[in-house]
Amino acid sequence: MKTRKQILITFEGGEGSGKTTQSKLLAIYLKQKGFDVLVLREPGGCPITEKIRNILLSPDNFKLTSLSELFLYEASRAQLTAEIILPALEAGKIVICDRFTDATIAYQGWGRKLPTAQIEMLNDLACYNLKPAITFYLDIDPQEGLKRAKGLADKPYGLAGDRIEAQNLTFHKNVRNGYLDLCKQYRQRIKQIAADKNIDEIQKIIQAYTDETLAQIEG
Amino acid sequence: MKTRKQILITFEGGEGSGKTTQSKLLAIYLKQKGFDVLVLREPGGCPITEKIRNILLSPDNFKLTSLSELFLYEASRAQLTAEIILPALEAGKIVICDRFTDATIAYQGWGRKLPTAQIEMLNDLACYNLKPAITFYLDIDPQEGLKRAKGLADKPYGLAGDRIEAQNLTFHKNVRNGYLDLCKQYRQRIKQIAADKNIDEIQKIIQAYTDETLAQIEG
Repeated sequence: MKTRKQILITFEGGEGSGKTTQSKLLAIYLKQKGFDVLVLREPGGCPITEKIRNILLSPDNFKLTSLSELFLYEASRAQLTAEIILPALEAGKIVICDRFTDATIAYQGWGRKLPTAQIEMLNDLACYNLKPAITFYLDIDPQEGLKRAKGLADKPYGLAGDRIEAQNLTFHKNVRNGYLDLCKQYRQRIKQIAADKNIDEIQKIIQAYTDETLAQIEG
Repeated sequence: MKTRKQILITFEGGEGSGKTTQSKLLAIYLKQKGFDVLVLREPGGCPITEKIRNILLSPDNFKLTSLSELFLYEASRAQLTAEIILPALEAGKIVICDRFTDATIAYQGWGRKLPTAQIEMLNDLACYNLKPAITFYLDIDPQEGLKRAKGLADKPYGLAGDRIEAQNLTFHKNVRNGYLDLCKQYRQRIKQIAADKNIDEIQKIIQAYTDETLAQIEG
């Protein structure tokens, strides 16, 4: 098993962008290359954060305020980072995370209209200033993405979707604008990929970019 | 029903200090005087925050980190403040809250050793800068308090207590030191009362101080 510098790879994107599928495929690819890889999802990823996830996503909690939602995401992130991510990175694993800090800027900042400067500060605190080495942003038109998300087999909250999916189209358009703004701000770190290509084609781009970046990091 | 200026009264204290009993007795007293009164507890107080409370207090979640714990308390506070406290104050109710922002300074700051300046900032954010008009701090020696708390009938997590009660004595001593420091800092707002008097005697002090302060506020 090869050990490497601390490498966190995050996947970002709106509902139905295919980021979960792509993150799992990248994990398989990297494992085949001999890396020790851990795949996580946010919110969630360990027992405590899965409990927080349930509060965040259950449509029962329609009264949840934007600010409380923000604190719950940061609580989940703080726990996952300290309990799972940092120890895994220490142990030489590549950690792949399905959503991370950028999602909070896009969803709670651009979607919910909370001040992004405040969110950045809470993000840094919650993740102990950990930064992803690579972020893949899978860009999809929200209308198309929500249609795709509705077609997925795994629908724990039924056809209307979880509490976030069930937000209106304007919300999801604002989230996308937030992601596009982040792509502009962090050109070096975030690789933007159009999610309307087929799965294999997207995965090839992701693999090539990962190989290239890992080679750079390893110098 | 009399309507008044926005008045939040908080009760603070370690385990077994009797604050829950005293807050309920004060509510009865104020209701008898014609006030519309709402009694709440933190964490908790509405369906979403009771779910957060379960995560915070369940001994199953022994891996919960201090930072994640802090964010969960703030999530609960943000929700309770926006959903329940602010609307109740707007409607002219006196709100009595069993623990509020001071508890986070004492428990997460002095108990868990997280930076208090950071906690103050998160507190202000979570409660929309709302400040209690009066805070009663019921002071008790932690050893005595924990003994009392163990004797209470309502023990949802069994004899060992909830996740916070089950912390060691040093933790609870640090929490007490935190409260005593807050009493020194906020002499105007916080009324410190020795909790080793009997229930009626303490309640008389609380009632007298409340009457006096309400008279001042109403001017």
